[in-house]
Amino acid sequence: MRDDADRLPLAPDFAPHPPGPPLAAAEIDGTDLVLRWHDGLTGRFNRFWLRENEVADGVVNPVTRERDLWVEDLPEALAIAAVSIGDGAVTLDWRPDGRRTRHAPGWLRDTAERRWHPAHDLPERVSWDAAEMPEPVSFDGPPALEDEAALGAFLAAARRHGLARLRGLPPQPGLVERLARRIGTIRGSNFGFTFAVESKPDPDSNAYTTAALPPHTDLASRELQPGFQMLFCLENGCHDGHSTMVDGMRLAEVLREKAPADFAALTGLSWVFSNRHPESDYRFSGPIIVLDASGAFAEMRNTSFLRAEPDMDPGDVEAAYGAVRRLQRMARDPAFACVYPFAPGDLVMFDNRRILHGRQGFTPASGTRRLEGCYIDHDEVHSRLRVIARAAR
Amino acid sequence: MRDDADRLPLAPDFAPHPPGPPLAAAEIDGTDLVLRWHDGLTGRFNRFWLRENEVADGVVNPVTRERDLWVEDLPEALAIAAVSIGDGAVTLDWRPDGRRTRHAPGWLRDTAERRWHPAHDLPERVSWDAAEMPEPVSFDGPPALEDEAALGAFLAAARRHGLARLRGLPPQPGLVERLARRIGTIRGSNFGFTFAVESKPDPDSNAYTTAALPPHTDLASRELQPGFQMLFCLENGCHDGHSTMVDGMRLAEVLREKAPADFAALTGLSWVFSNRHPESDYRFSGPIIVLDASGAFAEMRNTSFLRAEPDMDPGDVEAAYGAVRRLQRMARDPAFACVYPFAPGDLVMFDNRRILHGRQGFTPASGTRRLEGCYIDHDEVHSRLRVIARAAR
Repeated sequence: MRDDADRLPLAPDFAPHPPGPPLAAAEIDGTDLVLRWHDGLTGRFNRFWLRENEVADGVVNPVTRERDLWVEDLPEALAIAAVSIGDGAVTLDWRPDGRRTRHAPGWLRDTAERRWHPAHDLPERVSWDAAEMPEPVSFDGPPALEDEAALGAFLAAARRHGLARLRGLPPQPGLVERLARRIGTIRGSNFGFTFAVESKPDPDSNAYTTAALPPHTDLASRELQPGFQMLFCLENGCHDGHSTMVDGMRLAEVLREKAPADFAALTGLSWVFSNRHPESDYRFSGPIIVLDASGAFAEMRNTSFLRAEPDMDPGDVEAAYGAVRRLQRMARDPAFACVYPFAPGDLVMFDNRRILHGRQGFTPASGTRRLEGCYIDHDEVHSRLRVIARAAR
Repeated sequence: MRDDADRLPLAPDFAPHPPGPPLAAAEIDGTDLVLRWHDGLTGRFNRFWLRENEVADGVVNPVTRERDLWVEDLPEALAIAAVSIGDGAVTLDWRPDGRRTRHAPGWLRDTAERRWHPAHDLPERVSWDAAEMPEPVSFDGPPALEDEAALGAFLAAARRHGLARLRGLPPQPGLVERLARRIGTIRGSNFGFTFAVESKPDPDSNAYTTAALPPHTDLASRELQPGFQMLFCLENGCHDGHSTMVDGMRLAEVLREKAPADFAALTGLSWVFSNRHPESDYRFSGPIIVLDASGAFAEMRNTSFLRAEPDMDPGDVEAAYGAVRRLQRMARDPAFACVYPFAPGDLVMFDNRRILHGRQGFTPASGTRRLEGCYIDHDEVHSRLRVIARAAR
């Protein structure tokens, strides 16, 4: 952690990183340092950013890796007085405080490549319909419990398609929790930390009956719907009750193109989603299709059995119902549905904020059906994908 | 659950509700039923909403209280053919399916009053500075562990001010979890389900050192920052290390008025917040002050030691740093800070998406300082407030 000239500077994340291609030029441009590499890439680094990201005692804590420097304590007149390249470092001299800082060129290169962006190392999401996804993309289960690369491939598929399956796992209670803990922190809910899906005498959700469930997202009455859901089949003697998965991202794409007025109603008008229970009263108001700041599909919030009051101008309600009815008919159209039987030892992981999941009704008399499930948020899966990618670099 | 004429209709939430004031008139207006009460209130109810919210077998499940009806299965030509008031019900006759439905007038009245809205039964948030909040609003602790009204008063204060304190609790490990479980589901994180805050040899957060912490929100690198944080003091022999709380909502209000360019930079420009750790790589990009759709303050995401790369046009970075530096100087200005010693038996609950919390540095040699904490999301606190309000009606 010393600023010694005989030691290469560290990157603030302390992670191994390549030194990167050699630098061609460095210059000071007003408040910024501008670096140019021989392959033509240019990076522009603000004065405060450079000082915040120096790796030195008093700037970043060597143990917690959190920053100790408070940026508001730097002088307003802060300026780079001189820059030099060499000895594996970019060295800067500063006024008015006379400090000399050294920065890792590989880290600066990574920054110029925007490797710090949250989307980095995450696969692009690709939408699908029934023809494109006749069954979930599947992987051999046991390696994912032990091997980093196998877990990474499974998680990458779950991110890309919103749906992936592990097969051939030992149908043991607790396995879903074991896999989730390999990824990160489990998202608890009023259904528990993990939950068993089987018909029971006093159910607090239609999931715990034998009824068919229309394609839906879980916990739509919460501000943040759980990111991913895992369902693991311990036992299934029923001949019916197939799982159905529908890509809400694809539904949104089709609606945007074919039914723009309905798309506008689904993205622009809010509904309250509400859980009606004696012990709790969860409510959230928002649109059914959520777009990000760029207008791209972000997520779907769609649980017809929790959708409560229209939270909109009364003059918009009829249009809102028309759009919901169209969306729901599409969600039940076999042309969009991936339908498959749930076999013991199968574990399905799906993006609960994108994929609508449902099941056909089942006849309990035909056998016992026992699933175990849990939720894990996007943050955790994305973090794990980045750590696996980092280790593989 | 029968639709018998000799039984009053239920409301879909099955909760006790008053019949409400007597109805003056009911009429059919196109797709809607319009009700008018003697006090002048008018309610407008869409045809599909009425059918979705009938309480009858096949529409709502009497045990799970979730809806069994799929709205897209209702005929497009659905229309109210006749309406009548009497026998404690609003009775509707429908074409083309000839169904007769009965609805609870008290439930319709509640709906006309927008009692279903998520904001209902939640106190308005009121901002504060140091003069207005010299110490946290405080309550006697033990009753909140047993009594519904006492818990409700404490939670209402935490919602209103973003900060409330229970005093005189037995300083026992596990108590913070016991109180949290009375509210709802605890939000787990990489710091655990509950966490102990004391200096430790291999800290994964600056919180676990003896250093001063600038006012900040926790887990800014997550998509949804934890809603509320509870901190409970088990032991504190240190003379220093006072807690500091600053209302980010007030900071935003002052900035909006006094420094509109900085306010625009803080609401309109995104930063990546990043946790740098060998086992995880959490990242989220967003603005520091988040406004809701109406332009009102929604939340603050502000952890200077986790703020990483500016995720914006390079030409905006200098302005963004200027705004951050101004905000941070305000956050450290005693004029905004509620500063108080943490006494054993004190439990502080604060809105982590609004209140910036910090502490002065402390001298471990002066004594032992042990806190226990956990997170619980807004959803859980709001649900509990609604349930307590429902029971008190």
